[in-house]
Amino acid sequence: MDIFSKDLLDAARGFTPADAVFKNARIFNPFILDWEDGDLALKNGLILGIGTYNGKTEYNCSGSYIIPGLIDAHVHIESSLLIPREYARLVALHGTTTVIADPHEIANVAGLQGIDFMLAERSASSIDIRYLLPSCVPATPEDTGGATLDAGELRQLIGSDGVLGLGEMMNVPGVLAGDPAVGEKLRISAIRDGHAPLLRGKDLNAYIFAGMQSDHECICREEAEEKLRRGMYLFIREGSTEQNIAGLILLVTQKTVSRCCFASDDCHADLLFEKGHIDRCLRKAVKCGLEPELALRMATLSPAERFGLSDRGALTPGRRADLCIIDDLQHFNIKKVFVTGNEVTPCLPTTCSNPPVQFRSRVPSADAFRITEDGKARVIGLVPSQIMTDSLCYPVKAREIPDLNRDILKVVVCNRYRNRKCTLGLVHGFSLKQGAIASSISHDAHNIIAVGTRDEEIQCAIEEVITLRGAMVAVLEGKPAVLPLDSYGLMSTLPYPEVVRRLKDLHAITKRMGSIDDPFMYLSFLALTVVPSLRITDRGIFDVRKSVYLPLFIR
Amino acid sequence: MDIFSKDLLDAARGFTPADAVFKNARIFNPFILDWEDGDLALKNGLILGIGTYNGKTEYNCSGSYIIPGLIDAHVHIESSLLIPREYARLVALHGTTTVIADPHEIANVAGLQGIDFMLAERSASSIDIRYLLPSCVPATPEDTGGATLDAGELRQLIGSDGVLGLGEMMNVPGVLAGDPAVGEKLRISAIRDGHAPLLRGKDLNAYIFAGMQSDHECICREEAEEKLRRGMYLFIREGSTEQNIAGLILLVTQKTVSRCCFASDDCHADLLFEKGHIDRCLRKAVKCGLEPELALRMATLSPAERFGLSDRGALTPGRRADLCIIDDLQHFNIKKVFVTGNEVTPCLPTTCSNPPVQFRSRVPSADAFRITEDGKARVIGLVPSQIMTDSLCYPVKAREIPDLNRDILKVVVCNRYRNRKCTLGLVHGFSLKQGAIASSISHDAHNIIAVGTRDEEIQCAIEEVITLRGAMVAVLEGKPAVLPLDSYGLMSTLPYPEVVRRLKDLHAITKRMGSIDDPFMYLSFLALTVVPSLRITDRGIFDVRKSVYLPLFIR
Repeated sequence: MDIFSKDLLDAARGFTPADAVFKNARIFNPFILDWEDGDLALKNGLILGIGTYNGKTEYNCSGSYIIPGLIDAHVHIESSLLIPREYARLVALHGTTTVIADPHEIANVAGLQGIDFMLAERSASSIDIRYLLPSCVPATPEDTGGATLDAGELRQLIGSDGVLGLGEMMNVPGVLAGDPAVGEKLRISAIRDGHAPLLRGKDLNAYIFAGMQSDHECICREEAEEKLRRGMYLFIREGSTEQNIAGLILLVTQKTVSRCCFASDDCHADLLFEKGHIDRCLRKAVKCGLEPELALRMATLSPAERFGLSDRGALTPGRRADLCIIDDLQHFNIKKVFVTGNEVTPCLPTTCSNPPVQFRSRVPSADAFRITEDGKARVIGLVPSQIMTDSLCYPVKAREIPDLNRDILKVVVCNRYRNRKCTLGLVHGFSLKQGAIASSISHDAHNIIAVGTRDEEIQCAIEEVITLRGAMVAVLEGKPAVLPLDSYGLMSTLPYPEVVRRLKDLHAITKRMGSIDDPFMYLSFLALTVVPSLRITDRGIFDVRKSVYLPLFIR
Repeated sequence: MDIFSKDLLDAARGFTPADAVFKNARIFNPFILDWEDGDLALKNGLILGIGTYNGKTEYNCSGSYIIPGLIDAHVHIESSLLIPREYARLVALHGTTTVIADPHEIANVAGLQGIDFMLAERSASSIDIRYLLPSCVPATPEDTGGATLDAGELRQLIGSDGVLGLGEMMNVPGVLAGDPAVGEKLRISAIRDGHAPLLRGKDLNAYIFAGMQSDHECICREEAEEKLRRGMYLFIREGSTEQNIAGLILLVTQKTVSRCCFASDDCHADLLFEKGHIDRCLRKAVKCGLEPELALRMATLSPAERFGLSDRGALTPGRRADLCIIDDLQHFNIKKVFVTGNEVTPCLPTTCSNPPVQFRSRVPSADAFRITEDGKARVIGLVPSQIMTDSLCYPVKAREIPDLNRDILKVVVCNRYRNRKCTLGLVHGFSLKQGAIASSISHDAHNIIAVGTRDEEIQCAIEEVITLRGAMVAVLEGKPAVLPLDSYGLMSTLPYPEVVRRLKDLHAITKRMGSIDDPFMYLSFLALTVVPSLRITDRGIFDVRKSVYLPLFIR
């Protein structure tokens, strides 16, 4: 849009009325971390300025605060289980007006065709979705998903509307070794997100040297501080199960805030609906002791600057009129949201045409899950509120598995793209006492994954996923409850309230099974081969640090 | 340069030796405004990282500080009186490794050909010179210089090596009125510097709305704070005669520092040589009470971020090894400077081929300077340490001019491009008691300008400028002293030590005349039609605020 017009300049100068003016509010200024009283005027979706203005529409904002629209610096929309237009409908009500999304879940399932779907959805969305191209499809050579993407294929998309750069480079070994294929990918854009859990010291230097500019995988403060020092943007993540605000937020100070952002990474729709999105991060950060002004900058100007989006992130002349009216600086309740000057209102869902997805798995027999050996077994240990896992070791006896007392359950992975034998592992931490759950979401290859207390129920849950060509399933007392994931086996095309309802049903059922909160989110990360320590894929049990497959039993 | 190579990554990881390692220094980190101890390693001109490293060359920096190379956010190199290669030789020794230069002086004299000269000089320079294209040639329609540049001509240069964006948009009325020709210029780049002295309120909103992102013209704190609030980068200027650090520096805090930079704008070579460049700004800022870490960020990362130069401004992996070793955080004495890893050493000047410049003026007769009227006259009032002028009014008698007691002198402007009648005005503030000075530098048209105590000496000084086809001249007791400005009548092709020597001679002579410091710099700004209040051009006496020419006498 060309904004150099006499019409707009006259309105900025106050000679002609603005489209809308917000009066009597306290307006947040992220440039100087301060508040300002005055009229905020907008026209044609853009901020004209603060001053004394008249508008065709005037809002009395007495007693309220106005803040720039909230920005999520790193999210996989697929993890919400919503298609982008529904995701946008939901998070817009929570004040989010821009998200930087990496569509790498769908890319692992359907390659360029999947990314095209996400790009098409962008235009049907009420907020601005910007994509980073998935740099690691598959996540590692160990993953057997539905697609691979090389630099040449990514390059086809780099100029597309809505594409900002290259998404999280998870192939740390490839980067450090100077793998030419990695180099080819890094060259496609000057914006490159990183992903380097636990990387420190000179290897971190080399990783940054190679061009990665951000990290959202820090858990401990020392690691996060080192990454900040080395010039990385720090995305502090607060997802459904990856909760790092409490541990990291006090690193954010006036000195560092311009390099710190919030990222939700992976959040289910029910959490977004009930607890919020970036507004939830604001609440939590302030509760953890951060000054509200610093939290607000992290959610607005800092991510805008990180991604070169100089048209937003602050309510200054010429920027997008993306803004929220909030009640106070503790609860951050979102009272109204405007995206390019238009108020976000609850609206009806629109329908989305959705290409059919191939599921080639056959339902395994329950025999396939049998353990016949006794001995010291490798057990994946969940870490509460993190996507890291522990690499545990327990003496087990075949006939005592599942061992509900010690919380050792079977976990099964079936390749969804090819008809192969499923693999079997053990996991600690779900705390299920009965039933089984299964899902067609398992990062990043998105094979079918299941965990349960009885082989028949695991089998039943997997069968349901395959029959529906993608779903989340909970089987309790032989009866399955489902959330169909008809969009690529990752997302549902249902309206978000319906997805939330079904998710809540599933979570109520898993609660009855005795499960921890969010078992499907933890389940989905058990196959993630790029975050330590122990994982399971359709090829077996995988040690991330050593990058090797290992047998279930230690011999 | 492609930096993704196994060779470089191996060095970053410490597997192979670095080219050079700086040991035992305290290294400044502008991202977190803090210091760090460790070895700083570099290879192929790039920072590898901080850690424990070995290098082919090792420097023991015990007791010293290492800081990133200094960056000047806004400068007119021509004002140094040096051609760019000589300017670079001089400022590099003061720790400057990058300057953002607006070649609008030469552009006013010689248009695109002049800019081409500056671009060619860039490759002969030891520091990195980046140019913004002059947006206002001529500065206003009132100016009659040697060239005009429209958007189409500027667009020819926008992709050139070393061209970053659009330089200071001084045509504030044109912007506010929505002048389509201004709009055309604004559209050529996403990087646009501003220039808006005294602009406030809704007109400032409109100016920013139109796309200007920075300002270096603030004198008072309230104006500067408003511009920061509205999202402008604040360049705090410290030139030869435009000294704003003392008045503005305490606006710089941890909250605002990422939006604040230093700019030298216009500095003569002798000041650069004797007092320094951005290192001088550091000293002054700290002396005025700013924390050294904030001053250092203003001189490094903040300008790098403002201009999207993500390859410099901090000593983090992959960035340019532009750095300085300094003694302490009070004197900021520059002990060593490295540009892309190469130590800056005193070196011999190289010769520059310089196109001949046309001077079409004829020497006016002394009669042309005669005042015959008595009455209330308009007098341009110098403002110490500023380029603003006052609009004064004095009762004068023809026979009493010059009035040394009241410090009212004649000022004369002769068009250098066309043979025209010269114009005559009065000026207060030079404090000359004898002699005259003249110069072929007068912003921005660079006509010949002279001020003096006797008509014959004014004439003699002007004659000398014309004979040399460009010069600075001081005439005392009938004898002229000169600095020839053989490059476009703006710069000297002499080596900088010789220019400094001659400038010092000139300044010694003007001192003997009774002059204030830096009379040539004040003289050069008397014709500047874009900064209030009263000016004189080859067309007469000009009121900037009203944008009208006025007679010498008030009738």
